[in-house]
Amino acid sequence: MDRGRLEAFSDGVFAVAITLLALDLAVKGPGNGDLASLLGHRWPAFVAYLISFFTIGIIWVNHHSMMNGVVAVTRGLLYLNLLLLAVVVTIPFATSTLADYLLDGRPNANTAAALFAGVFELMSIAFALVSEWVLRHDQYVRDPMSAAAKKPARLSFYAGQVPYLIAFVVAFFNVWATVAITAATGIYYIFVRTYAPPTPTAPASPPE
Amino acid sequence: MDRGRLEAFSDGVFAVAITLLALDLAVKGPGNGDLASLLGHRWPAFVAYLISFFTIGIIWVNHHSMMNGVVAVTRGLLYLNLLLLAVVVTIPFATSTLADYLLDGRPNANTAAALFAGVFELMSIAFALVSEWVLRHDQYVRDPMSAAAKKPARLSFYAGQVPYLIAFVVAFFNVWATVAITAATGIYYIFVRTYAPPTPTAPASPPE
Amino acid sequence: MDRGRLEAFSDGVFAVAITLLALDLAVKGPGNGDLASLLGHRWPAFVAYLISFFTIGIIWVNHHSMMNGVVAVTRGLLYLNLLLLAVVVTIPFATSTLADYLLDGRPNANTAAALFAGVFELMSIAFALVSEWVLRHDQYVRDPMSAAAKKPARLSFYAGQVPYLIAFVVAFFNVWATVAITAATGIYYIFVRTYAPPTPTAPASPPE
Amino acid sequence: MDRGRLEAFSDGVFAVAITLLALDLAVKGPGNGDLASLLGHRWPAFVAYLISFFTIGIIWVNHHSMMNGVVAVTRGLLYLNLLLLAVVVTIPFATSTLADYLLDGRPNANTAAALFAGVFELMSIAFALVSEWVLRHDQYVRDPMSAAAKKPARLSFYAGQVPYLIAFVVAFFNVWATVAITAATGIYYIFVRTYAPPTPTAPASPPE
Repeated sequence: MDRGRLEAFSDGVFAVAITLLALDLAVKGPGNGDLASLLGHRWPAFVAYLISFFTIGIIWVNHHSMMNGVVAVTRGLLYLNLLLLAVVVTIPFATSTLADYLLDGRPNANTAAALFAGVFELMSIAFALVSEWVLRHDQYVRDPMSAAAKKPARLSFYAGQVPYLIAFVVAFFNVWATVAITAATGIYYIFVRTYAPPTPTAPASPPE
Repeated sequence: MDRGRLEAFSDGVFAVAITLLALDLAVKGPGNGDLASLLGHRWPAFVAYLISFFTIGIIWVNHHSMMNGVVAVTRGLLYLNLLLLAVVVTIPFATSTLADYLLDGRPNANTAAALFAGVFELMSIAFALVSEWVLRHDQYVRDPMSAAAKKPARLSFYAGQVPYLIAFVVAFFNVWATVAITAATGIYYIFVRTYAPPTPTAPASPPE
Repeated sequence: MDRGRLEAFSDGVFAVAITLLALDLAVKGPGNGDLASLLGHRWPAFVAYLISFFTIGIIWVNHHSMMNGVVAVTRGLLYLNLLLLAVVVTIPFATSTLADYLLDGRPNANTAAALFAGVFELMSIAFALVSEWVLRHDQYVRDPMSAAAKKPARLSFYAGQVPYLIAFVVAFFNVWATVAITAATGIYYIFVRTYAPPTPTAPASPPE
Repeated sequence: MDRGRLEAFSDGVFAVAITLLALDLAVKGPGNGDLASLLGHRWPAFVAYLISFFTIGIIWVNHHSMMNGVVAVTRGLLYLNLLLLAVVVTIPFATSTLADYLLDGRPNANTAAALFAGVFELMSIAFALVSEWVLRHDQYVRDPMSAAAKKPARLSFYAGQVPYLIAFVVAFFNVWATVAITAATGIYYIFVRTYAPPTPTAPASPPE
């Protein structure tokens, strides 16, 4: 299989999942009081939406960086990638559950926050598995990393699982800590580049 | 990252968002009286649907024109583009809210109209940010614009934010003015070309 | 704009619309009696689903045949294509309304059937407008048709609007006639090729 | 028609269908008791989701392997492929019905399990039809299989229909047997490669 179709299918799944997130912003129809209040009370949905949107966005960016150097797709990579997507498509469900229960108090808010962070943690593990495949299959990668470069790369994406694990554990004590950690993790990934792909995203020889 | 996958992902998000818009046209099932009346009373949904469909369509067309000349995609452009998409996917929510509340009278109809115009305004700002990136990164653009050509281009996409800003402000006074301004803005963009991309959409050397 | 992205976006919209169709097959949950009966009573939904699925499928096939020869996409073609897509995405709504109201008796079943055929008629008109653009812009088409070949091609896609027009009119008298005509039109298009594109779908020089 | 657009459209449909599966995981909102219990009671939805996700994933992988060698797409292949997709998009509906009724006892659970296995069986038949087309059209396939190689290939994808047929029949006696067989079939396909495509997925000449 060529890489193109793996990417096209993955992009399709990422695009649908990221768009479905926003469906949960909907408020009740007329006859339920002041619309401005209804929208105001939905702020947990907006917060959850923003965190999930940019978290999926980051995974999509990193997915692309990682796949960029892969020249041949094996069945093993296909199914590891499906595993990653199987987690990604559950994010709208976890997001919507958090949005509904964030203000519901103990223990339901805690359960929802643990579900939210738990799904992100699973996504992070699945992404690490795909990354591990890429690091282990130099024969299918253009310009594979040197053994020396692999060590920090590996460290980086294994370390990436720590924040979501913490966010999961603290969910049982304080849901706002979970919200803050997942949001901060997203902001960190957007402004600091983590996955160093074998091939640069900027052109090696930029147009003069 | 090559431009292709950025476009494929963006196209996916635009396509899903534009298709979800029409889900809101649905009317209640049997047992709710005359279907023709039910459909007739949904006319605000049809109006809102048409405005949003063509507004997303215009952004998609302009997005393509703008990206057409980009030869290398940096992390900065990726995240600015994600910001734009994060606004685009909330359009079905804003459209559905306007459709439900347009005939609900003051103050709910005004809130819904302000939300509708506000989301369009945010989309317009996000698009200007992406455009600004393109104008500032000549090294990543094929046939970059001259400094002289950039001035009117910049003016054009900053001016593009004025109608939605007006539509937002008047929403608090007259919802029909908001509907009229957002519809007129769409019609204007379809029939007058605004964003002049670095590369022509028609082939430079058409087949003779 | 190159043709590729127009096609990718259109394919995305067709794919989402065709998949959303099946969401309407859903039956009520437990506590509503015998599931086999519930499914059995949903047969109008299955009929409506099949007709709409293959009608969208046919339009997608013809869309591709038609676009295959286009070498440059102008703003006019982009917006005509958006008009076509704006109708296509309302098909799930019309299908779902027909499914709900087909057995509801006069006048609601008639209204639903007229809506169903009316949307197909609008789709057919929008497709004819796109086709007309292609026939009129030889300079943007590879191997344009001869004037002699254009006459029957034009006739064919204008004639294509007659069945849906009839299906729309008879909807006010007999909803089953509308169902039969729209189904038969689909079957006819699948087994008889109508749009003869400038370039063959089978390779001119097949691999020996 | 070139293969690319057939694949792009099919990928879009597979991607949307696979993402919609997860929408059914949603639980009721606040005011319905303990969230952990609500999620716990939804375990049939998680089981059904996982089976359907990987079954669609497998079909997507096999679809790609099969299409990989096709060099020209005829109208016949297009419509056989649409038939396959028409079944694939009903999988979210069958999955959601199984999730809702799995614990509902006889006869509704049996009906839901039969629907679930029945849709998989239809998908398997449609896939066999597409495969049969590929095996019969050597002139449109790069490096077509030898007659000797076709026999086991054919056997393999006809044999692929047996498990779903058994799962369908046993649904009327024991719904858990249906769940076990459909899950086991998925696991078998992931770990054992069945469809041997004319062209290898790994590159013939891997980068040294």
